[in-house]
Amino acid sequence: MVKAAVMSEPGKLEVKSFDLPKVAENAMLVRIKACGVCGTDVHLFRGHMKSTPFPIIPGHEFSGTVEELGPKANESLNVRGGELHGGDRVTVVPGLPCGKCYYCRNLPHYPNLCTNRLIYGVSRTCERPPHLYGGYAEYIYIEPGSWVYKLPDGMSFEVAALAEPMAVATRALERAFAPGVPFAGMGFGVGATVVVQGTGAIGLLTIAAAKVAGAGKVIAVERVKQRLRMAKRMGADEVVDMRELRTQEERVRRVLELTDGVGADVVVECTGVPAAVPEGLEMVRRGGKYVEVGHFTDPGGVEIRPHVICYKDMDVLGSWVYPLTQFREALAVLNSGRFPFKDIFTHRFKIENALKAIQASEKGECIKAMIAP
Amino acid sequence: MVKAAVMSEPGKLEVKSFDLPKVAENAMLVRIKACGVCGTDVHLFRGHMKSTPFPIIPGHEFSGTVEELGPKANESLNVRGGELHGGDRVTVVPGLPCGKCYYCRNLPHYPNLCTNRLIYGVSRTCERPPHLYGGYAEYIYIEPGSWVYKLPDGMSFEVAALAEPMAVATRALERAFAPGVPFAGMGFGVGATVVVQGTGAIGLLTIAAAKVAGAGKVIAVERVKQRLRMAKRMGADEVVDMRELRTQEERVRRVLELTDGVGADVVVECTGVPAAVPEGLEMVRRGGKYVEVGHFTDPGGVEIRPHVICYKDMDVLGSWVYPLTQFREALAVLNSGRFPFKDIFTHRFKIENALKAIQASEKGECIKAMIAP
Amino acid sequence: MVKAAVMSEPGKLEVKSFDLPKVAENAMLVRIKACGVCGTDVHLFRGHMKSTPFPIIPGHEFSGTVEELGPKANESLNVRGGELHGGDRVTVVPGLPCGKCYYCRNLPHYPNLCTNRLIYGVSRTCERPPHLYGGYAEYIYIEPGSWVYKLPDGMSFEVAALAEPMAVATRALERAFAPGVPFAGMGFGVGATVVVQGTGAIGLLTIAAAKVAGAGKVIAVERVKQRLRMAKRMGADEVVDMRELRTQEERVRRVLELTDGVGADVVVECTGVPAAVPEGLEMVRRGGKYVEVGHFTDPGGVEIRPHVICYKDMDVLGSWVYPLTQFREALAVLNSGRFPFKDIFTHRFKIENALKAIQASEKGECIKAMIAP
Amino acid sequence: MVKAAVMSEPGKLEVKSFDLPKVAENAMLVRIKACGVCGTDVHLFRGHMKSTPFPIIPGHEFSGTVEELGPKANESLNVRGGELHGGDRVTVVPGLPCGKCYYCRNLPHYPNLCTNRLIYGVSRTCERPPHLYGGYAEYIYIEPGSWVYKLPDGMSFEVAALAEPMAVATRALERAFAPGVPFAGMGFGVGATVVVQGTGAIGLLTIAAAKVAGAGKVIAVERVKQRLRMAKRMGADEVVDMRELRTQEERVRRVLELTDGVGADVVVECTGVPAAVPEGLEMVRRGGKYVEVGHFTDPGGVEIRPHVICYKDMDVLGSWVYPLTQFREALAVLNSGRFPFKDIFTHRFKIENALKAIQASEKGECIKAMIAP
Repeated sequence: MVKAAVMSEPGKLEVKSFDLPKVAENAMLVRIKACGVCGTDVHLFRGHMKSTPFPIIPGHEFSGTVEELGPKANESLNVRGGELHGGDRVTVVPGLPCGKCYYCRNLPHYPNLCTNRLIYGVSRTCERPPHLYGGYAEYIYIEPGSWVYKLPDGMSFEVAALAEPMAVATRALERAFAPGVPFAGMGFGVGATVVVQGTGAIGLLTIAAAKVAGAGKVIAVERVKQRLRMAKRMGADEVVDMRELRTQEERVRRVLELTDGVGADVVVECTGVPAAVPEGLEMVRRGGKYVEVGHFTDPGGVEIRPHVICYKDMDVLGSWVYPLTQFREALAVLNSGRFPFKDIFTHRFKIENALKAIQASEKGECIKAMIAP
Repeated sequence: MVKAAVMSEPGKLEVKSFDLPKVAENAMLVRIKACGVCGTDVHLFRGHMKSTPFPIIPGHEFSGTVEELGPKANESLNVRGGELHGGDRVTVVPGLPCGKCYYCRNLPHYPNLCTNRLIYGVSRTCERPPHLYGGYAEYIYIEPGSWVYKLPDGMSFEVAALAEPMAVATRALERAFAPGVPFAGMGFGVGATVVVQGTGAIGLLTIAAAKVAGAGKVIAVERVKQRLRMAKRMGADEVVDMRELRTQEERVRRVLELTDGVGADVVVECTGVPAAVPEGLEMVRRGGKYVEVGHFTDPGGVEIRPHVICYKDMDVLGSWVYPLTQFREALAVLNSGRFPFKDIFTHRFKIENALKAIQASEKGECIKAMIAP
Repeated sequence: MVKAAVMSEPGKLEVKSFDLPKVAENAMLVRIKACGVCGTDVHLFRGHMKSTPFPIIPGHEFSGTVEELGPKANESLNVRGGELHGGDRVTVVPGLPCGKCYYCRNLPHYPNLCTNRLIYGVSRTCERPPHLYGGYAEYIYIEPGSWVYKLPDGMSFEVAALAEPMAVATRALERAFAPGVPFAGMGFGVGATVVVQGTGAIGLLTIAAAKVAGAGKVIAVERVKQRLRMAKRMGADEVVDMRELRTQEERVRRVLELTDGVGADVVVECTGVPAAVPEGLEMVRRGGKYVEVGHFTDPGGVEIRPHVICYKDMDVLGSWVYPLTQFREALAVLNSGRFPFKDIFTHRFKIENALKAIQASEKGECIKAMIAP
Repeated sequence: MVKAAVMSEPGKLEVKSFDLPKVAENAMLVRIKACGVCGTDVHLFRGHMKSTPFPIIPGHEFSGTVEELGPKANESLNVRGGELHGGDRVTVVPGLPCGKCYYCRNLPHYPNLCTNRLIYGVSRTCERPPHLYGGYAEYIYIEPGSWVYKLPDGMSFEVAALAEPMAVATRALERAFAPGVPFAGMGFGVGATVVVQGTGAIGLLTIAAAKVAGAGKVIAVERVKQRLRMAKRMGADEVVDMRELRTQEERVRRVLELTDGVGADVVVECTGVPAAVPEGLEMVRRGGKYVEVGHFTDPGGVEIRPHVICYKDMDVLGSWVYPLTQFREALAVLNSGRFPFKDIFTHRFKIENALKAIQASEKGECIKAMIAP
């Protein structure tokens, strides 16, 4: 029997047992070693996402070993890192594009735009066999078409469980660093000054990724002491403590002081708090870039001045999820060995205590919690 | 003696006479044939721009003939189109970067970011000799360093007087069409669907430029009947009449109907009205681009939902002025002969009636007024 | 019975009859109205491509009407232009990526890189049912996964049969116009000067596409009188006649004369002749772009000077096939109504005379031949 | 009196004394602390460059302290890093665009394209006062308009003397990493595989810069043992020893082995040897990028197959010099502290021994020589 934490309805999370499924010839069973708890999981638990198909096993940030492999799985899966064998250490991209919506048909090179993504731990119910479609479990059943990445030698399962949020972070950064940068000195890339608003897991990983990509001064803006300390460990050169600098004016002034009076080349919004947006827009230099990756849910509106965007000749760039290939960059950053990524997990829970993990995450007690069988 | 319209203080515009200046060896005197009246001129007249150095001769959208040329002017000026001679037909980029501010020194390839631009008709007083630094006059005195473009054969002075606003329009479009478009089918360029919000002069020129650049369906959103008619003449395939579709919801729905239900590839904001921004954001498809070029002054704030930008994975791109080379594209579009550009000037005034031109522009009676000696 | 022209082995092309196939629930049968003859068809006939799976029905540039549609075909096909019904006028992207090779797995947004493409009329044998996998036939059997484009209203089947080579041409141009062009005046796009070397079908379509995308001066270099005349009809502003300017030096000098002495912004190689490459590199201005789209087969090597590429700071850009979405741009250009595209087909043949079509193409008697039932 | 090494004619280099010049109000005198010997200096010495205005003081890669500063020099110079004072530690961009040629006027954002650059140590004679226009001297006289960078705290003068070649190296890399990279997983940037052909100073700095920018596996191809060792110290993950793998076939096969059988994402040519080009083209994966930065002089031609470029859909990108802003990135990489940059200078000479420095460089005895007063 396989143990899993199941959300049967909003607000309810309990451990259940399932039969070990029979693996189809083009599918795979992975024994889970580590699974991160994401803010999305809390939203699922609270019933904030209307489309959630309860009952569901949460967990979309997982790593583990290949327990059983269908004889045609190496063809039906998109495997990176060479042929797959039993026992291999892997992580899996949780979301798959539907292939049928307007965006899949018209912009197939933008799979993140799919309006109907099938996501392990988020949009796949556990109602019917093989049931095991989430990461808060001993095993997960991987369907054909999934993207599977073998882990680099020496990377721990815990660090590998960060590949999914690191994919979010690196894609957000690439929105600022990459497009239409034809020339040295436009201020992006090596030597660029980057402000990261909010240092939850995505913010922390953004800081580290910026440093690995050669950023110059990275400035973290945060309110929680524990997170500010972690921001420094993840590579932040400067921190702006919101408990000391209590107003937008003070914080913007501080960022200007730290950037020759002109503002940062890039600001990445990782808070999900609307008020961060007008503040962040003030922190960008003219011609700079503002990346909006924090508002993956909709907490409402905020007033901005369009003139600021026009006058600054700036880019405001939304970043939604990531392409299926993004795990390559994510694993490369995690594998750089330059920052103590493992310590982003401040709390660890057994499957039996998944409810406590959700509660601790909701209260903000932990930077990031992990579920491990 | 040279006749010119002078703003001596906010709200006051009167005709004065100046001596014909002696031309320095590295300068040039141009006899003005046509000068457009820009919304900025109205702002100058109303004293909205604190930095205006009264007294001033307005007019920064002008064309004319070379009256006198200093012996070293071909070296000191940046001339495009071959060596300059007396009698040549020209237009001149009105703004010059200062070369000294942070942006000039750090991002010299972005001269539009200069925080201290010297602009004929906008930031050059007529207090001291040679006085003639604006387009509402019989002559204008062109200083060394200025960018001078010879007119293509057969282009009228009136059409050439549109080079400056066309530079604004084409640069705004390039913000959406060009950067980071590595691939067919991303939806920009040939075949792209473009919404233009507001069809004043900039909006109309944006419509025409989009068609010349190969756009597919171009949709104009406007309230004024005269402008909607002109939008069609400038190449708009569809118009959304704000008097008929009176709410944001109706207009967004109409744009969706016209775009397979997904929204436009590109939306360009040319109204300068804050409320247009949240409406326009709703009109962009996911992965699409929103260009903010209308808010060159600051009428205040408006509420937007950051989640829309994040979820749509979209670009919101400010467009401020244009690089000095932009007149090449502007003249190429105007020279395409595909649209009746001259008719954008609905009213013509003598220098003596410059005040009436300002008043007619302020009341919105004309699409665009022209001053011609 | 269905009539088709079959290559059973190199050098042999004969008409055969096949049963009208039963259409599977996720497939489609198209009644062919027009099919272009491509240089590739001649190479197939001559056995130049080792991987050709004889017997084969050639023809990958076709248009027609939907004869029969499986009940699930609207889901299994990638249809653009709305839901598909019997009788709809369509064209189909002939090549499909395999989904399994290194490039499909690692760079899925570059389907043109697939090393194992399945191509109607090129790499699908007609040995087994349903047999009908090529365009030199009365019907073609379209498998699930194929990309189907409905024709714009009013576009003839003949013009639609040019969608495939126009996809090649527009993709080649986009290699030069689009990537990393963040700024006005970099010389690409509106107003750019473009040289097209060779005015076979791809060259002619490149000329027209450049004009539709707003190019300035387009210069055609060609040896054959008939083609030079057609180049002008397709929008070329200038032609360089290789019979008059017989040496590389003369032709390069002529292009410099036509481009202010600096060379063209973009040169597109559409000849497939190695000697064109060093000549074309000399025709590009510094900082310009050279697109290599003509050498889709390998006629051997040619000497170039690496210093030219280094000193010119130029881009030499290979262009191989096109992404699946490229037909959108191709159809948009063909639908512009600005050039007499139909006249590119100078010869028309019945299926029974397919051999004559191949022979006429090989001899260069026609600009482009068409097979039509 | 000021000591300087002067080339009075090809093949002749001797030490001369000049008067300490009077510094104009908009100029600056720098006391030189270190000056690198570049391959260009050897070409100057051998008279390979026709335009060299003998007599000349060589040396364009220098750092030092501000000895004397004209009262208006902070305005007339382009200073980065804050206001300049006597005693400040600086390095200076040696080349300045002329501002008058076609490229300066039409593509001012590409100052590297200027056909008439004025370069300290390369194209400025020492015939007339103030004479001191080269780095092989105790002082250098800096004219208005020059770009001056203050050194980061803690950076040694020796490392700072590498800013100029590092500008070449980072700009070459940016040609591959930056333009038109809109998306994760296109293979450039973080995690990309980079081959560097040739590990002289430019090659070594390219290796280090690639690592600082987050490259994955970096592979150096070189023949000289000392340089292979240094390549590893500068961050190369793998080396291909040309003395062991003696044929192109063996080396290409080795690179394929090291890159999953597909070739490298990026190959940078830093040898200046024509035969490296066809070899390097074979080492690039499909869709990859080849940067040609080594052929800054013209040793002649080499045969390539155009089909390779077309079929691979690859970019061949020339890289000529760098923009004036590039020193920002160059100093950022040098300031990363991640590699022992100082050790690239294997030999140090007094001004009196400048001839020996040139001779040792020509013989290839040193990786890089330095002149220091």
